Amino acid sequence: MSLVLLSLKFSKNVLLLTTILLVESSRCGLVTRATRKLCSRMATRWGIVSAGRICNDFVTALSVLSQDEHQVKAIAARDLARAQEFAKLHNIPKAYGSYEELAKDKDIDVIYIGNVNCDHFPIGKLMIAHGKHVLVEKPLCLNKAQSTELINAAKAKNVFLMEAVWSRFTPAYNKIREDIANGAIGEPSNINVTFGVPIMGKDRIKLRELGGGCILDIGIYCLQLITMVFGTGAPLKVAATGTVSVSEGVDETCGAVLLYEGGKMATLAISGKMLLQNDAFVSGEKGTIKVCNPFWTPTRVESPSGVLDVELPTATNKFNFTNSVQLRHQAQEVRRCILAGELESKVMSHQDSLAIAALEDQLRRILGVQYAADL
Amino acid sequence: MSLVLLSLKFSKNVLLLTTILLVESSRCGLVTRATRKLCSRMATRWGIVSAGRICNDFVTALSVLSQDEHQVKAIAARDLARAQEFAKLHNIPKAYGSYEELAKDKDIDVIYIGNVNCDHFPIGKLMIAHGKHVLVEKPLCLNKAQSTELINAAKAKNVFLMEAVWSRFTPAYNKIREDIANGAIGEPSNINVTFGVPIMGKDRIKLRELGGGCILDIGIYCLQLITMVFGTGAPLKVAATGTVSVSEGVDETCGAVLLYEGGKMATLAISGKMLLQNDAFVSGEKGTIKVCNPFWTPTRVESPSGVLDVELPTATNKFNFTNSVQLRHQAQEVRRCILAGELESKVMSHQDSLAIAALEDQLRRILGVQYAADL
Repeated sequence: MSLVLLSLKFSKNVLLLTTILLVESSRCGLVTRATRKLCSRMATRWGIVSAGRICNDFVTALSVLSQDEHQVKAIAARDLARAQEFAKLHNIPKAYGSYEELAKDKDIDVIYIGNVNCDHFPIGKLMIAHGKHVLVEKPLCLNKAQSTELINAAKAKNVFLMEAVWSRFTPAYNKIREDIANGAIGEPSNINVTFGVPIMGKDRIKLRELGGGCILDIGIYCLQLITMVFGTGAPLKVAATGTVSVSEGVDETCGAVLLYEGGKMATLAISGKMLLQNDAFVSGEKGTIKVCNPFWTPTRVESPSGVLDVELPTATNKFNFTNSVQLRHQAQEVRRCILAGELESKVMSHQDSLAIAALEDQLRRILGVQYAADL
Repeated sequence: MSLVLLSLKFSKNVLLLTTILLVESSRCGLVTRATRKLCSRMATRWGIVSAGRICNDFVTALSVLSQDEHQVKAIAARDLARAQEFAKLHNIPKAYGSYEELAKDKDIDVIYIGNVNCDHFPIGKLMIAHGKHVLVEKPLCLNKAQSTELINAAKAKNVFLMEAVWSRFTPAYNKIREDIANGAIGEPSNINVTFGVPIMGKDRIKLRELGGGCILDIGIYCLQLITMVFGTGAPLKVAATGTVSVSEGVDETCGAVLLYEGGKMATLAISGKMLLQNDAFVSGEKGTIKVCNPFWTPTRVESPSGVLDVELPTATNKFNFTNSVQLRHQAQEVRRCILAGELESKVMSHQDSLAIAALEDQLRRILGVQYAADL
């Protein structure tokens, strides 16, 4: 209030404006470049790591949200020209040719890390070290050990960290959770899910040094559904088999059965070689929820409580992946958490990430797939 | 021809009739009660073992076929009163209080064995020993060892033997095989199937001494689809887990992944505790065939080649199980084989039964379920 009194020498109008600004500032905490705390009247300022396909989709999804809430302020890529091209396409003010520059940018609240799997851990650590909140594209890291370290780093630095399991923030997944909570299918006891798409030709999936393999790329979507429904406790038994590419030693297909306490069971089929039906079925004694293809970003859920059909908004720029406009929902959760001072999301918590990482580790171990980071 | 000449002493009309009869006889072989060979002009004469629910359905399904081709001549049950009651309901001329009497009945061509699993082997042997052709309700026997012995017995006695995997003879399964043969989905590489129904309360499923458990009762339908599509060669790897009833030690649920040569994979979930979605998906590089719930006796198949919808005829008597009128198709195959002098069906061969039995054995072994017959 002493600051408000200082304004008395100015005109009435200036005084009014200053008062409003300062009252807002006191609500949000003192605003400085170094210690800016996000306020509901301020837009969340995003920095983007990498100019790749998923980053294109994430930024395009953000463009559907209000500019008063979400603004992409900078993009960084190893190749400055690519960063500049990306910035131009998406009308982003700043482009950097290194991640360090982005990490040091004081006008950024939160970083979205969307580069190849093997970079999630080091870039995540870099951003956290610079006090940035971080949303990391799935998988959070290559294994549970890295995930644990990254989570601990975020906690130590008091910043928000979340694995970008965007499925969970879609209206369809909200319905799934509500249905289960309301007992629409009784106690869920069985999950059956397949995720198969022919993607093994892509470097990010094919190459082991990039953290390739279908478990981390698409299998995670099956595993996150299972842990969302059955909880983050480890299954009592995991039976799995699959195929590993001869040339690269990464998992191409994986079938698994996860048996949980009380006889709950999940069966999943993951294939990086071919298109499968890609529905998910969650069954309880009273019925089944069908999460329609593409179950990881569904627009239709059929449940005993009724059918949900989601209409998707369009964006000016083009998307690379199916229904990517739904990436925006997780961005809204990130903003909500940061505004509320929550360092993790209850919908996709650190514990969720660790449970999923443990399952990924276990499946890869059974199949005999090892990254350098595992050694 | 000498027999025909003998008829010359009769009137012209009698001569004509006798000639026709004898020409038919020479086509079908000499007709005596002991060595009757089935002729296309003669009805197949069925004898039924057990007066239980599936036998009711089988006989009711037969009632939809022409009486000129299929006639149920006798029913046998341990309890004569039950056999008589069954005979009355289904208008069957003879009822026996023992299986031995049925085995000795010279007016029976083929026996349908529909009693509890543990009886398939001994009753099958009994009927074969009496020279009867045999259709045995699935599972053929409790394990591969018994199945092998029963098949060898049938071969030695030169009689027809088939496991009643009725699914394979439905119009829907004909379409599946045709689609695969015609390349509608390319080389099939992935199968995903669930079969879950709450049946663990029933004695035939619950009790180990009857050959209970969900693998033999419903899991077989998943396994027969898999072997039909991927062939009868053993999978390279089988990963499975599940739950076993504490009281009885039989399998209640089982999830499994079967990995075949060339990276082909099948995932299946079997549950005797709850209703699952019960569709089956067979995927190849060019698309997926969806065998709609109930996949074991479907009336709808969705395929890249088009959708098949099957209309089912009605019967006078009531059925116990879903779409049981489709049981008649396997009966037609039995008749066709016997008329053609084929001792096994190409659609559901002895090798098929042995391959399925081997998989059932393997799954039960993994789960730790053992019958006395396994010891």
